[in-house]
Amino acid sequence: MKLSEIYQPVEADLKAVSDQFQLLAEGKRESFPELHKMLRHTLVGGKVIRPALTIICCHCFNYEQAKVLPMATASELMHISTLIHDDAIDKADTRRGVATVNALWGTDKAILLGDYLFARAGEFAAATENIRVVKLFSRTLQIISSGELNQFFSAYNLKQTREQYFKKISGKTASLFSLATESGAILSGAPEKSVKTLREYGHHLGIAFQIVDDILDFIGTEEELGKPVGSDLAQGTLTLPAMLLLERYPENNPVKRRFENRDDKDNIKQAIEMIRNSPIVDECYLVASEYSARACQDLTELPENSSREALFELAKYVVARKK
Amino acid sequence: MKLSEIYQPVEADLKAVSDQFQLLAEGKRESFPELHKMLRHTLVGGKVIRPALTIICCHCFNYEQAKVLPMATASELMHISTLIHDDAIDKADTRRGVATVNALWGTDKAILLGDYLFARAGEFAAATENIRVVKLFSRTLQIISSGELNQFFSAYNLKQTREQYFKKISGKTASLFSLATESGAILSGAPEKSVKTLREYGHHLGIAFQIVDDILDFIGTEEELGKPVGSDLAQGTLTLPAMLLLERYPENNPVKRRFENRDDKDNIKQAIEMIRNSPIVDECYLVASEYSARACQDLTELPENSSREALFELAKYVVARKK
Repeated sequence: MKLSEIYQPVEADLKAVSDQFQLLAEGKRESFPELHKMLRHTLVGGKVIRPALTIICCHCFNYEQAKVLPMATASELMHISTLIHDDAIDKADTRRGVATVNALWGTDKAILLGDYLFARAGEFAAATENIRVVKLFSRTLQIISSGELNQFFSAYNLKQTREQYFKKISGKTASLFSLATESGAILSGAPEKSVKTLREYGHHLGIAFQIVDDILDFIGTEEELGKPVGSDLAQGTLTLPAMLLLERYPENNPVKRRFENRDDKDNIKQAIEMIRNSPIVDECYLVASEYSARACQDLTELPENSSREALFELAKYVVARKK
Repeated sequence: MKLSEIYQPVEADLKAVSDQFQLLAEGKRESFPELHKMLRHTLVGGKVIRPALTIICCHCFNYEQAKVLPMATASELMHISTLIHDDAIDKADTRRGVATVNALWGTDKAILLGDYLFARAGEFAAATENIRVVKLFSRTLQIISSGELNQFFSAYNLKQTREQYFKKISGKTASLFSLATESGAILSGAPEKSVKTLREYGHHLGIAFQIVDDILDFIGTEEELGKPVGSDLAQGTLTLPAMLLLERYPENNPVKRRFENRDDKDNIKQAIEMIRNSPIVDECYLVASEYSARACQDLTELPENSSREALFELAKYVVARKK
């Protein structure tokens, strides 16, 4: 199923989130023309999977628009602000096929725009009037930033275990997915057992999503990815496909050569070729599918409705997507 | 009166905040040795004026330690995280006489450490369980970051009005001072009129504080400042003393030359000399004193106690301080 079809039951809410973004970009607050320009550039596009998750989870129980919309907006804003800082750190030139904030305005302004959007995200989270959700929100940002910091200290390190990889993507991606689902559950007054089910759904879905991201970084095209192929290796980040390649060819290996001699770009090309032409891709997809299945394992406990169905479909989509 | 004497009635609370910092630096959470090292480096020193304000304001009414301590911690953490990002942006080498995070670990890690501390600050703010305070907290971070962004776009611009200067320091410094005082008032259940009085006290105190900072940047010594003299001009930031110098000598002026020819360091030296040997310093102190007096003008409405006295003393200290 296409993403737009899965989103169909919550289309009106997602439109309201995007209207909120529009308002944010055009609003009178802290008004100076350059900020508006930066916001207009930033607050467009994307799969909006995080706000969709919040909205869908909220629809599983007692849906309250006045609470769910701010939280859906908050989770997407937090996502966007972490991307802005990530791109500034990675000195990335393109994201989703367009120039990054740091490429257009420089690292310094990217830092400040990211901070500004964190703060706006925090304000939307607080607009839920639910202190438990606000605490979750802050905790998630801590997990993401300390995870990124940890990743940084382990860059170009070949001796990373799978356990470390899963911890890393859990912090980097799954934490925000589970914030999105858990906050939706809490705001809809779901029973604690269902809050847990939806939190774990979000967590496992996020892991599956990131594994697929890491696969696509090797097998996608620059056009599909909206950024250069092999970006992770270029940043010294060891992902699952690269780890499997290292396990298979521990001696003369392009990933090893790349990490030991950072200037050599041919090694990235070679690693891409070797991974594409090996069963590694299938192996990684198998792991992603396992996580997707695990995400769904307790969903049948939830009330049977179109929202629950959407969660099942999203779990399929996350593995099947091509970009 | 020395700061330590003013703080004397709230010494135990400030010790509790510093213990909290210790715990944060040594804690088990997100534990990896480099993060601990960075936190230990960051979470020391400073005038702790923001947490002191929160605590003192809270003592004016119904003091509740379980609420005020997290908020005092939150306001200092937010301050520290903005400094880390500022230093990364300004490529500053020293702060408070020690090496900055970016100088020791690079810009990238400084971005992430700042994000992490924002998040921890948000968590402490949420620990107050007071949604109004959480909203204020997020709003303040927005004002600070959009203010910094605006300042950035106006760097090396000679045509800035005094109104723009006051708006800038209001966003950059006074907003966090008034968050500190207003949140203390709210958390102590102060009547709305007193919440307003304390918010405005914080705002005006912050303006006075920043004007003095801007004066000291010209008349202090590197040892007192803990950073090079004339840093603002070096960053292309026009502060009140430099604006007055431009007004007095609109034609052949070292500030003008510095902004038009960024490489010429002699102009900074010359501007420092001219400002030091002119009535500009006194004029600026007069403005700072006016704001300090304005901060105090409604304080007599508050209950008469040692906390109110401390607020009066702080207003004097802020203008008299030498570093």
